[in-house]
Amino acid sequence: MNSEPRLLEVRKNVFRQNDVTARALRDRFRAQGTFVVSLVSSPGAGKTTFLEKTLTLLRPHCRVAALVGDLATENDALRLARSGAPVKQITTGTLCHLEAAMIEHALEGWDVDQLDFLFIENVGNLVCPASYDLGEDLRLVLLSVTEGEDKPLKYPTIFNSADVAVITKIDLAAAVEFDEQAAHANIHAVRPGMHLFQVSAKTGEGMDNYLQFLAGKMAELHQKTPV
Amino acid sequence: MNSEPRLLEVRKNVFRQNDVTARALRDRFRAQGTFVVSLVSSPGAGKTTFLEKTLTLLRPHCRVAALVGDLATENDALRLARSGAPVKQITTGTLCHLEAAMIEHALEGWDVDQLDFLFIENVGNLVCPASYDLGEDLRLVLLSVTEGEDKPLKYPTIFNSADVAVITKIDLAAAVEFDEQAAHANIHAVRPGMHLFQVSAKTGEGMDNYLQFLAGKMAELHQKTPV
Repeated sequence: MNSEPRLLEVRKNVFRQNDVTARALRDRFRAQGTFVVSLVSSPGAGKTTFLEKTLTLLRPHCRVAALVGDLATENDALRLARSGAPVKQITTGTLCHLEAAMIEHALEGWDVDQLDFLFIENVGNLVCPASYDLGEDLRLVLLSVTEGEDKPLKYPTIFNSADVAVITKIDLAAAVEFDEQAAHANIHAVRPGMHLFQVSAKTGEGMDNYLQFLAGKMAELHQKTPV
Repeated sequence: MNSEPRLLEVRKNVFRQNDVTARALRDRFRAQGTFVVSLVSSPGAGKTTFLEKTLTLLRPHCRVAALVGDLATENDALRLARSGAPVKQITTGTLCHLEAAMIEHALEGWDVDQLDFLFIENVGNLVCPASYDLGEDLRLVLLSVTEGEDKPLKYPTIFNSADVAVITKIDLAAAVEFDEQAAHANIHAVRPGMHLFQVSAKTGEGMDNYLQFLAGKMAELHQKTPV
C-alpha cells in the first residue's frame, strides 16, 4: 500500500509519545509505593472474573483498585465493583487497546496515592495491546483452557510482552480435553522460562499460589524503593 | 496525543485504498461466480474447527477453497488442509487483521477461478478486522459459548460489520452455564434481526441449517449474476 511508510512513521511517533507517558506513570507509581499489574488476553478469556476474585481476596489485607478498558459498556466496572474495591471504566470507543495517556487521564482527581495494588484490565485483544507500555510493573497474559493450546505460537508478540502467563478456567480442562503439557510447551517455546499459573476463579483453585507471588513482588518493590 | 489528527488522516487513506481493492475483488468474485465468506472472531472461538467442518461437508458437493490469516505459524492451513480442500496461509507478522491487498496477493497464481465458495478466516481479533472490507459476500462473526454472553455489547462494531452471527461450541453450553436467551438478546440489541446459528463443529449439531443457508445464498448469487 502506498501510504505504508507514512503510516509506519506516524505509528513510531505514537509509540514514542506513549513510552514517555508510561515512564512518567511508572516513576509516579514507584514513588507512591503502588504495585501495578496489567491484564491482557483475548475477549472472553476470563479477565474480569479473575480480577474480581483477585480484588475480593486481596481487599481484606491491602488497598487495591482497578481500571478496566472496553470499547463499550460499563459492565466490567460494575462487575468488579462487587468486590468492594474502587473501580473506574475506560471506554475506548473503537480503539483496540489502552494507552498510557488513558491511564493518566483516568487517574486524574482519583485518590489512589495510598494504594498497594492497582490493576489495569486491558481491552480483550491478543494483538494490539502488546505494543503499549502502560507503566505497569507486571503484565499478565491470560489464556483460557477453552481457547486452544496453540495460541502462544499464533500470538507470540503478546506473550513476549508479558511477564507471567495465567491459564484460566482450569475447571473446564477435562470438558475441553485441555492438553496442559502442550500449552506449557507452547508458552515456553515463545518465551523460555516464563512464569506460569493455572487457576479457576470459579472454584478458587490456584488463586493462593498466584496471590503469594503477587505479595512477593510487592515486598521486592518495597525493598528496592528508598523510603 | 499531538499526532492524533495526522494518524486519523493516514488511517483514512489506508481505509480508502482498502475499499478500492476490496471493490475490485468483489467484482472479480461476482464475475467468476464465486461466493466469498469471511469469518471473524476472538482468538479461540473455534473458527478453524468450524471452517474445517464446513469444508469437509461441502467438498463432496462443490468446489471450495480457503485462505487463513494468522500473525504467525502455518498451523491453521495444515489443519484446514485435512479437509482435502485447497488452502493458503497468510502470515501477517504483527498486523492484527487481514486487508484486501493481502487477499489479492494470496490469490495470485492460484487457480481458483472455478470455485463455488472461497472462505477467508481472519486473524483472531474482535476489534480491528471490523474496519477492513475483504471483498466478501458474507461476513460471519463467531462467538463461542465459553466467551460470555456480553461480548456483542462490548464489541458492537464487529457485530455491526458482520451479516450473520454463529454461536460455536454449543456442546459446552451446559458446562459453562451458557445463557442462550441473553446471548441472543445482546446480539439483537447491537444488530436487530441479525441472522443467528448455533453450532457444534465437534458433534455436528446445527451444521445442516447453516450449510442450507449458505447454499441458498449461493443460489441467490447465481440468480443475480447474468450468465
